[in-house]
Amino acid sequence: MAREGDLAATVPAATPGDKAPRTARGRRTRQAILDAAAAEFGERGFHEASISGITRRAGVALGSFYTYFDSKDAVFRALVRHMSEQVRDHVAPAIRAAPDGIAAERAGLAGFIEFVRAHKEIYRIIDEAEFVDPESFRSHYATTAERIGARLQAAAARGEVADGVGEVHAWAIMGMNVFLGLRYGVWAEDRTPGDVADAVAALLQRGIGR
Amino acid sequence: MAREGDLAATVPAATPGDKAPRTARGRRTRQAILDAAAAEFGERGFHEASISGITRRAGVALGSFYTYFDSKDAVFRALVRHMSEQVRDHVAPAIRAAPDGIAAERAGLAGFIEFVRAHKEIYRIIDEAEFVDPESFRSHYATTAERIGARLQAAAARGEVADGVGEVHAWAIMGMNVFLGLRYGVWAEDRTPGDVADAVAALLQRGIGR
Repeated sequence: MAREGDLAATVPAATPGDKAPRTARGRRTRQAILDAAAAEFGERGFHEASISGITRRAGVALGSFYTYFDSKDAVFRALVRHMSEQVRDHVAPAIRAAPDGIAAERAGLAGFIEFVRAHKEIYRIIDEAEFVDPESFRSHYATTAERIGARLQAAAARGEVADGVGEVHAWAIMGMNVFLGLRYGVWAEDRTPGDVADAVAALLQRGIGR
Repeated sequence: MAREGDLAATVPAATPGDKAPRTARGRRTRQAILDAAAAEFGERGFHEASISGITRRAGVALGSFYTYFDSKDAVFRALVRHMSEQVRDHVAPAIRAAPDGIAAERAGLAGFIEFVRAHKEIYRIIDEAEFVDPESFRSHYATTAERIGARLQAAAARGEVADGVGEVHAWAIMGMNVFLGLRYGVWAEDRTPGDVADAVAALLQRGIGR
Protein backbone atom coordinates (compact mmCIF):
# COMPACT_ATOMS: atom_id res chain seq x y z
CA MET A 1 0.00 0.00 0.00
CA ALA A 2 3.01 2.30 0.37
CA ARG A 3 3.06 2.73 -3.40
CA GLU A 4 -0.27 4.51 -3.44
CA GLY A 5 1.07 7.60 -1.68
CA ASP A 6 4.24 7.58 -3.75
CA LEU A 7 2.33 7.37 -7.00
CA ALA A 8 0.17 10.31 -5.93
CA ALA A 9 3.17 12.61 -6.04
CA THR A 10 4.22 11.62 -9.55
CA VAL A 11 0.92 11.44 -11.45
CA PRO A 12 0.90 14.39 -13.84
CA ALA A 13 -1.93 16.84 -13.19
CA ALA A 14 -2.52 17.65 -16.84
CA THR A 15 -5.78 16.69 -18.56
CA PRO A 16 -6.84 17.83 -22.06
CA GLY A 17 -7.18 21.62 -22.21
CA ASP A 18 -5.13 21.95 -19.03
CA LYS A 19 -1.57 23.22 -19.46
CA ALA A 20 0.81 22.13 -16.70
CA PRO A 21 2.79 24.94 -15.03
CA ARG A 22 6.59 24.78 -15.10
CA THR A 23 7.46 26.91 -12.08
CA ALA A 24 6.58 26.85 -8.37
CA ARG A 25 4.81 30.19 -8.80
CA GLY A 26 2.85 28.80 -11.72
CA ARG A 27 1.83 25.79 -9.66
CA ARG A 28 0.61 28.10 -6.87
CA THR A 29 -1.45 30.15 -9.34
CA ARG A 30 -2.93 27.05 -10.92
CA GLN A 31 -3.76 25.73 -7.44
CA ALA A 32 -5.42 29.04 -6.48
CA ILE A 33 -7.55 28.82 -9.65
CA LEU A 34 -8.58 25.24 -8.82
CA ASP A 35 -9.50 26.20 -5.24
CA ALA A 36 -11.55 29.10 -6.55
CA ALA A 37 -13.18 26.82 -9.12
CA ALA A 38 -14.20 24.40 -6.35
CA ALA A 39 -15.97 27.26 -4.55
CA GLU A 40 -17.52 28.67 -7.73
CA PHE A 41 -18.78 25.33 -9.13
CA GLY A 42 -19.75 24.10 -5.65
CA GLU A 43 -21.90 27.17 -4.92
CA ARG A 44 -23.31 28.01 -8.34
CA GLY A 45 -23.22 24.72 -10.26
CA PHE A 46 -21.53 24.28 -13.63
CA HIS A 47 -24.03 26.19 -15.78
CA GLU A 48 -24.25 29.28 -13.56
CA ALA A 49 -20.52 29.32 -12.80
CA SER A 50 -18.29 31.63 -14.86
CA ILE A 51 -14.60 31.99 -15.60
CA SER A 52 -14.73 35.59 -14.36
CA GLY A 53 -16.30 34.33 -11.11
CA ILE A 54 -13.37 31.94 -10.73
CA THR A 55 -10.66 34.52 -11.46
CA ARG A 56 -12.34 37.04 -9.11
CA ARG A 57 -12.39 34.47 -6.27
CA ALA A 58 -8.79 33.48 -7.02
CA GLY A 59 -7.62 37.12 -7.27
CA VAL A 60 -5.90 36.46 -10.59
CA ALA A 61 -6.22 38.13 -13.99
CA LEU A 62 -8.26 36.53 -16.76
CA GLY A 63 -5.04 36.02 -18.73
CA SER A 64 -3.64 33.85 -15.92
CA PHE A 65 -6.69 31.60 -16.19
CA TYR A 66 -6.03 31.04 -19.88
CA THR A 67 -2.37 30.36 -19.18
CA TYR A 68 -3.50 27.16 -17.46
CA PHE A 69 -6.94 26.27 -18.81
CA ASP A 70 -8.59 26.53 -22.23
CA SER A 71 -12.20 26.84 -21.09
CA LYS A 72 -14.76 26.42 -18.30
CA ASP A 73 -15.04 22.77 -19.35
CA ALA A 74 -11.29 22.32 -19.04
CA VAL A 75 -11.08 23.77 -15.52
CA PHE A 76 -14.09 21.68 -14.45
CA ARG A 77 -12.44 18.53 -15.81
CA ALA A 78 -9.18 19.39 -14.04
CA LEU A 79 -11.10 20.11 -10.83
CA VAL A 80 -12.85 16.70 -10.80
CA ARG A 81 -9.50 15.02 -11.25
CA HIS A 82 -7.90 17.26 -8.62
CA MET A 83 -10.64 16.51 -6.05
CA SER A 84 -10.36 12.79 -6.77
CA GLU A 85 -6.61 12.99 -6.17
CA GLN A 86 -7.07 15.15 -3.06
CA VAL A 87 -9.33 12.53 -1.48
CA ARG A 88 -6.86 9.80 -2.35
CA ASP A 89 -3.93 11.73 -0.92
CA HIS A 90 -5.85 12.72 2.22
CA VAL A 91 -6.68 9.13 3.14
CA ALA A 92 -3.46 7.48 1.90
CA PRO A 93 -1.24 7.97 5.00
CA ALA A 94 -3.83 6.48 7.40
CA ILE A 95 -4.49 3.59 5.02
CA ARG A 96 -0.75 2.97 4.73
CA ALA A 97 -0.31 3.03 8.52
CA ALA A 98 -3.16 0.59 9.19
CA PRO A 99 -2.11 -2.80 10.61
CA ASP A 100 -4.27 -4.91 8.26
CA GLY A 101 -6.70 -4.84 5.36
CA ILE A 102 -9.91 -4.28 7.33
CA ALA A 103 -8.24 -1.57 9.42
CA ALA A 104 -7.11 0.06 6.18
CA GLU A 105 -10.71 0.26 4.92
CA ARG A 106 -11.79 1.60 8.31
CA ALA A 107 -9.12 4.32 8.13
CA GLY A 108 -10.06 5.13 4.54
CA LEU A 109 -13.72 5.66 5.44
CA ALA A 110 -13.00 7.73 8.57
CA GLY A 111 -10.56 9.88 6.60
CA PHE A 112 -13.04 10.27 3.76
CA ILE A 113 -15.83 11.49 6.05
CA GLU A 114 -13.39 13.97 7.63
CA PHE A 115 -12.37 15.19 4.19
CA VAL A 116 -16.00 15.58 3.11
CA ARG A 117 -16.84 17.65 6.20
CA ALA A 118 -14.10 20.09 5.23
CA HIS A 119 -14.97 19.99 1.49
CA LYS A 120 -18.73 19.56 1.31
CA GLU A 121 -18.74 20.85 -2.29
CA ILE A 122 -17.08 17.62 -3.46
CA TYR A 123 -20.44 15.85 -3.84
CA ARG A 124 -22.02 18.56 -5.91
CA ILE A 125 -18.96 18.78 -8.17
CA ILE A 126 -18.38 15.06 -8.74
CA ASP A 127 -22.11 14.35 -9.06
CA GLU A 128 -22.53 17.16 -11.58
CA ALA A 129 -19.71 15.61 -13.62
CA GLU A 130 -22.17 12.82 -14.49
CA PHE A 131 -23.92 15.41 -16.67
CA VAL A 132 -21.21 17.90 -17.54
CA ASP A 133 -18.26 15.59 -18.07
CA PRO A 134 -19.31 11.90 -18.00
CA GLU A 135 -15.79 10.72 -18.79
CA SER A 136 -14.39 12.34 -15.62
CA PHE A 137 -17.28 10.95 -13.57
CA ARG A 138 -16.66 7.45 -14.85
CA SER A 139 -12.92 7.73 -14.46
CA HIS A 140 -13.22 8.93 -10.84
CA TYR A 141 -15.28 5.92 -9.78
CA ALA A 142 -13.48 3.35 -11.94
CA THR A 143 -10.11 4.50 -10.55
CA THR A 144 -11.35 4.56 -6.97
CA ALA A 145 -12.84 1.07 -7.25
CA GLU A 146 -9.62 -0.26 -8.80
CA ARG A 147 -7.63 1.19 -5.92
CA ILE A 148 -9.92 -0.43 -3.32
CA GLY A 149 -9.83 -3.72 -5.26
CA ALA A 150 -6.03 -3.70 -5.35
CA ARG A 151 -5.93 -3.09 -1.58
CA LEU A 152 -8.33 -5.97 -0.94
CA GLN A 153 -6.38 -8.36 -3.14
CA ALA A 154 -3.12 -7.43 -1.42
CA ALA A 155 -4.82 -8.01 1.94
CA ALA A 156 -6.10 -11.40 0.73
CA ALA A 157 -2.59 -12.34 -0.40
CA ARG A 158 -1.37 -11.50 3.12
CA GLY A 159 -4.12 -13.72 4.57
CA GLU A 160 -5.96 -10.81 6.23
CA VAL A 161 -9.22 -11.04 4.29
CA ALA A 162 -11.02 -13.90 2.58
CA ASP A 163 -9.80 -15.22 -0.75
CA GLY A 164 -12.14 -14.37 -3.54
CA VAL A 165 -12.53 -10.69 -2.71
CA GLY A 166 -12.76 -8.80 -5.97
CA GLU A 167 -14.48 -6.15 -8.00
CA VAL A 168 -17.92 -6.64 -6.41
CA HIS A 169 -16.46 -6.06 -2.95
CA ALA A 170 -14.53 -3.03 -4.15
CA TRP A 171 -17.67 -1.44 -5.62
CA ALA A 172 -19.66 -2.37 -2.51
CA ILE A 173 -17.10 -0.66 -0.24
CA MET A 174 -16.92 2.40 -2.51
CA GLY A 175 -20.72 2.66 -2.48
CA MET A 176 -20.85 2.44 1.31
CA ASN A 177 -18.20 5.13 1.60
CA VAL A 178 -19.91 7.51 -0.83
CA PHE A 179 -23.30 7.24 0.87
CA LEU A 180 -21.94 7.32 4.42
CA GLY A 181 -19.94 10.40 3.41
CA LEU A 182 -23.13 12.00 2.11
CA ARG A 183 -25.14 11.13 5.23
CA TYR A 184 -22.52 11.79 7.95
CA GLY A 185 -20.28 14.26 6.12
CA VAL A 186 -22.64 16.52 4.15
CA TRP A 187 -26.19 16.13 5.52
CA ALA A 188 -25.48 16.02 9.26
CA GLU A 189 -22.58 15.43 11.62
CA ASP A 190 -24.52 13.52 14.27
CA ARG A 191 -22.04 10.62 14.45
CA THR A 192 -18.26 10.88 14.55
CA PRO A 193 -16.34 9.63 11.51
CA GLY A 194 -14.67 7.10 13.83
CA ASP A 195 -18.00 5.67 15.05
CA VAL A 196 -19.30 5.28 11.51
CA ALA A 197 -16.05 3.66 10.40
CA ASP A 198 -16.07 1.30 13.41
CA ALA A 199 -19.52 0.00 12.44
CA VAL A 200 -18.40 -0.57 8.86
CA ALA A 201 -15.15 -2.25 9.94
CA ALA A 202 -17.17 -4.68 12.12
CA LEU A 203 -19.47 -5.35 9.16
CA LEU A 204 -16.48 -6.06 6.92
CA GLN A 205 -14.72 -8.17 9.55
CA ARG A 206 -17.51 -10.52 10.57
CA GLY A 207 -20.75 -9.46 8.87
CA ILE A 208 -24.08 -8.90 10.57
CA GLY A 209 -25.39 -12.47 10.20
CA ARG A 210 -26.12 -14.69 13.18
CA MET B 1 -42.17 -6.97 5.73
CA ALA B 2 -45.53 -7.85 4.20
CA ARG B 3 -46.69 -4.33 4.98
CA GLU B 4 -44.23 -2.73 2.58
CA GLY B 5 -46.02 -4.08 -0.51
CA ASP B 6 -49.44 -3.28 0.93
CA LEU B 7 -48.46 0.28 1.71
CA ALA B 8 -47.17 0.71 -1.83
CA ALA B 9 -50.68 0.34 -3.20
CA THR B 10 -52.19 2.91 -0.88
CA VAL B 11 -49.61 5.72 -0.86
CA PRO B 12 -51.16 8.62 -2.79
CA ALA B 13 -49.20 9.53 -5.90
CA ALA B 14 -49.81 13.26 -5.59
CA THR B 15 -46.95 15.67 -4.95
CA PRO B 16 -47.22 19.49 -5.12
CA GLY B 17 -48.20 20.66 -8.60
CA ASP B 18 -49.39 17.14 -9.45
CA LYS B 19 -53.16 16.62 -9.60
CA ALA B 20 -54.27 13.05 -8.91
CA PRO B 21 -56.61 11.53 -11.53
CA ARG B 22 -60.03 10.29 -10.39
CA THR B 23 -60.78 7.73 -13.11
CA ALA B 24 -59.04 4.63 -14.46
CA ARG B 25 -58.66 6.38 -17.82
CA GLY B 26 -57.12 9.38 -16.09
CA ARG B 27 -54.67 7.13 -14.24
CA ARG B 28 -53.64 5.54 -17.56
CA THR B 29 -53.08 8.95 -19.15
CA ARG B 30 -51.08 10.18 -16.17
CA GLN B 31 -49.02 6.96 -16.28
CA ALA B 32 -48.38 7.41 -20.03
CA ILE B 33 -47.15 10.95 -19.34
CA LEU B 34 -44.81 9.71 -16.58
CA ASP B 35 -43.42 6.96 -18.84
CA ALA B 36 -42.84 9.52 -21.58
CA ALA B 37 -41.24 11.89 -19.06
CA ALA B 38 -38.82 9.13 -18.00
CA ALA B 39 -37.72 8.73 -21.62
CA GLU B 40 -37.56 12.49 -22.27
CA PHE B 41 -35.63 13.41 -19.09
CA GLY B 42 -33.50 10.26 -19.33
CA GLU B 43 -32.38 11.01 -22.90
CA ARG B 44 -32.21 14.81 -22.89
CA GLY B 45 -31.68 15.76 -19.25
CA PHE B 46 -33.90 18.20 -17.36
CA HIS B 47 -32.78 21.42 -19.04
CA GLU B 48 -33.07 20.18 -22.63
CA ALA B 49 -36.31 18.27 -21.98
CA SER B 50 -39.60 19.96 -22.87
CA ILE B 51 -43.27 19.47 -22.05
CA SER B 52 -44.04 19.23 -25.78
CA GLY B 53 -41.40 16.48 -26.09
CA ILE B 54 -43.16 14.61 -23.28
CA THR B 55 -46.68 14.94 -24.74
CA ARG B 56 -45.40 13.96 -28.20
CA ARG B 57 -43.80 10.79 -26.78
CA ALA B 58 -46.94 10.04 -24.75
CA GLY B 59 -49.26 10.73 -27.70
CA VAL B 60 -51.44 13.04 -25.61
CA ALA B 61 -52.55 16.63 -26.11
CA LEU B 62 -50.85 19.48 -24.27
CA GLY B 63 -54.09 20.08 -22.37
CA SER B 64 -53.94 16.55 -20.96
CA PHE B 65 -50.50 17.31 -19.57
CA TYR B 66 -51.80 20.34 -17.69
CA THR B 67 -54.74 18.29 -16.38
CA TYR B 68 -52.22 16.36 -14.30
CA PHE B 69 -49.13 18.55 -13.91
CA ASP B 70 -48.55 22.27 -13.44
CA SER B 71 -45.10 22.51 -15.00
CA LYS B 72 -41.94 20.72 -16.13
CA ASP B 73 -40.73 20.93 -12.53
CA ALA B 74 -43.92 19.28 -11.28
CA VAL B 75 -43.71 16.35 -13.70
CA PHE B 76 -40.02 15.88 -12.87
CA ARG B 77 -40.81 15.85 -9.15
CA ALA B 78 -43.63 13.34 -9.71
CA LEU B 79 -41.32 11.21 -11.86
CA VAL B 80 -38.60 10.98 -9.19
CA ARG B 81 -41.21 9.87 -6.67
CA HIS B 82 -42.74 7.46 -9.17
CA MET B 83 -39.36 5.85 -9.98
CA SER B 84 -38.57 5.57 -6.29
CA GLU B 85 -41.91 3.81 -5.74
CA GLN B 86 -41.45 1.62 -8.82
CA VAL B 87 -38.12 0.32 -7.49
CA ARG B 88 -39.68 -0.34 -4.10
CA ASP B 89 -42.65 -2.18 -5.62
CA HIS B 90 -40.44 -4.17 -8.01
CA VAL B 91 -38.28 -5.57 -5.23
CA ALA B 92 -40.98 -5.90 -2.53
CA PRO B 93 -42.38 -9.36 -3.43
CA ALA B 94 -38.94 -11.03 -3.48
CA ILE B 95 -37.98 -9.30 -0.24
CA ARG B 96 -41.24 -10.44 1.35
CA ALA B 97 -40.74 -14.03 0.18
CA ALA B 98 -37.15 -14.25 1.50
CA PRO B 99 -36.65 -16.68 4.39
CA ASP B 100 -34.57 -14.31 6.54
CA GLY B 101 -33.09 -10.84 6.83
CA ILE B 102 -29.87 -11.45 4.90
CA ALA B 103 -31.76 -13.29 2.15
CA ALA B 104 -34.13 -10.32 1.97
CA GLU B 105 -31.21 -7.93 1.31
CA ARG B 106 -29.85 -10.36 -1.25
CA ALA B 107 -33.22 -10.44 -3.03
CA GLY B 108 -33.53 -6.66 -2.84
CA LEU B 109 -30.15 -6.15 -4.52
CA ALA B 110 -30.71 -8.78 -7.25
CA GLY B 111 -34.14 -7.28 -7.97
CA PHE B 112 -32.71 -3.76 -8.03
CA ILE B 113 -30.00 -4.66 -10.57
CA GLU B 114 -32.66 -6.33 -12.75
CA PHE B 115 -34.83 -3.23 -12.51
CA VAL B 116 -31.92 -0.96 -13.42
CA ARG B 117 -31.07 -3.02 -16.51
CA ALA B 118 -34.63 -2.48 -17.74
CA HIS B 119 -34.73 1.21 -16.67
CA LYS B 120 -31.20 2.51 -17.14
CA GLU B 121 -32.51 6.11 -17.18
CA ILE B 122 -33.23 5.89 -13.43
CA TYR B 123 -29.67 6.93 -12.52
CA ARG B 124 -29.65 9.98 -14.72
CA ILE B 125 -33.05 11.08 -13.43
CA ILE B 126 -32.50 10.56 -9.71
CA ASP B 127 -28.95 11.91 -9.88
CA GLU B 128 -30.12 15.01 -11.74
CA ALA B 129 -32.68 15.58 -8.97
CA GLU B 130 -29.73 16.56 -6.76
CA PHE B 131 -29.52 19.73 -8.86
CA VAL B 132 -33.05 20.19 -10.20
CA ASP B 133 -35.09 19.18 -7.16
CA PRO B 134 -32.89 18.61 -4.08
CA GLU B 135 -35.90 17.88 -1.86
CA SER B 136 -36.93 14.89 -4.02
CA PHE B 137 -33.33 13.66 -4.12
CA ARG B 138 -33.04 13.81 -0.36
CA SER B 139 -36.45 12.27 0.18
CA HIS B 140 -35.69 9.35 -2.15
CA TYR B 141 -32.56 8.37 -0.26
CA ALA B 142 -33.87 9.15 3.23
CA THR B 143 -36.98 7.02 2.57
CA THR B 144 -34.99 4.17 1.05
CA ALA B 145 -32.55 4.11 3.98
CA GLU B 146 -35.43 4.15 6.48
CA ARG B 147 -37.01 1.18 4.73
CA ILE B 148 -33.75 -0.80 4.81
CA GLY B 149 -33.22 0.18 8.45
CA ALA B 150 -36.72 -1.01 9.40
CA ARG B 151 -36.08 -4.34 7.66
CA LEU B 152 -32.77 -4.79 9.49
CA GLN B 153 -34.30 -4.00 12.87
CA ALA B 154 -37.16 -6.44 12.27
CA ALA B 155 -34.58 -9.08 11.28
CA ALA B 156 -32.60 -8.33 14.46
CA ALA B 157 -35.78 -8.68 16.54
CA ARG B 158 -36.29 -12.11 14.95
CA GLY B 159 -32.70 -13.04 15.84
CA GLU B 160 -31.58 -13.27 12.21
CA VAL B 161 -29.00 -10.47 12.24
CA ALA B 162 -26.83 -8.97 14.95
CA ASP B 163 -28.33 -6.65 17.53
CA GLY B 164 -27.14 -3.12 17.07
CA VAL B 165 -27.81 -2.88 13.35
CA GLY B 166 -29.02 0.61 12.61
CA GLU B 167 -28.84 3.65 10.40
CA VAL B 168 -25.16 3.24 9.50
CA HIS B 169 -25.83 -0.30 8.22
CA ALA B 170 -28.89 0.87 6.31
CA TRP B 171 -26.92 3.62 4.56
CA ALA B 172 -24.03 1.22 3.92
CA ILE B 173 -26.37 -1.29 2.25
CA MET B 174 -28.11 1.43 0.23
CA GLY B 175 -24.73 2.72 -0.95
CA MET B 176 -23.59 -0.75 -2.00
CA ASN B 177 -26.82 -1.27 -3.90
CA VAL B 178 -26.65 2.06 -5.71
CA PHE B 179 -23.05 1.57 -6.84
CA LEU B 180 -23.44 -2.11 -7.72
CA GLY B 181 -26.55 -1.14 -9.73
CA LEU B 182 -24.50 1.49 -11.55
CA ARG B 183 -21.61 -0.90 -12.26
CA TYR B 184 -23.53 -4.10 -13.10
CA GLY B 185 -26.85 -2.62 -14.22
CA VAL B 186 -25.93 0.50 -16.22
CA TRP B 187 -22.24 0.33 -17.16
CA ALA B 188 -21.92 -3.35 -18.09
CA GLU B 189 -23.80 -6.59 -17.59
CA ASP B 190 -20.73 -8.82 -17.21
CA ARG B 191 -21.98 -10.48 -13.99
CA THR B 192 -25.50 -11.77 -13.33
CA PRO B 193 -27.58 -9.91 -10.73
CA GLY B 194 -27.69 -13.18 -8.76
CA ASP B 195 -23.88 -13.52 -8.67
CA VAL B 196 -23.44 -9.94 -7.50
CA ALA B 197 -26.14 -10.38 -4.85
CA ASP B 198 -24.59 -13.67 -3.66
CA ALA B 199 -21.26 -11.94 -3.03
CA VAL B 200 -22.96 -9.17 -1.07
CA ALA B 201 -25.10 -11.63 0.92
CA ALA B 202 -21.93 -13.50 1.94
CA LEU B 203 -20.33 -10.19 2.94
CA LEU B 204 -23.38 -9.29 5.05
CA GLN B 205 -23.64 -12.77 6.56
CA ARG B 206 -20.06 -13.34 7.68
CA GLY B 207 -17.88 -10.46 6.47
CA ILE B 208 -14.62 -10.79 4.59
CA GLY B 209 -12.33 -10.83 7.64
CA ARG B 210 -10.21 -13.84 8.54
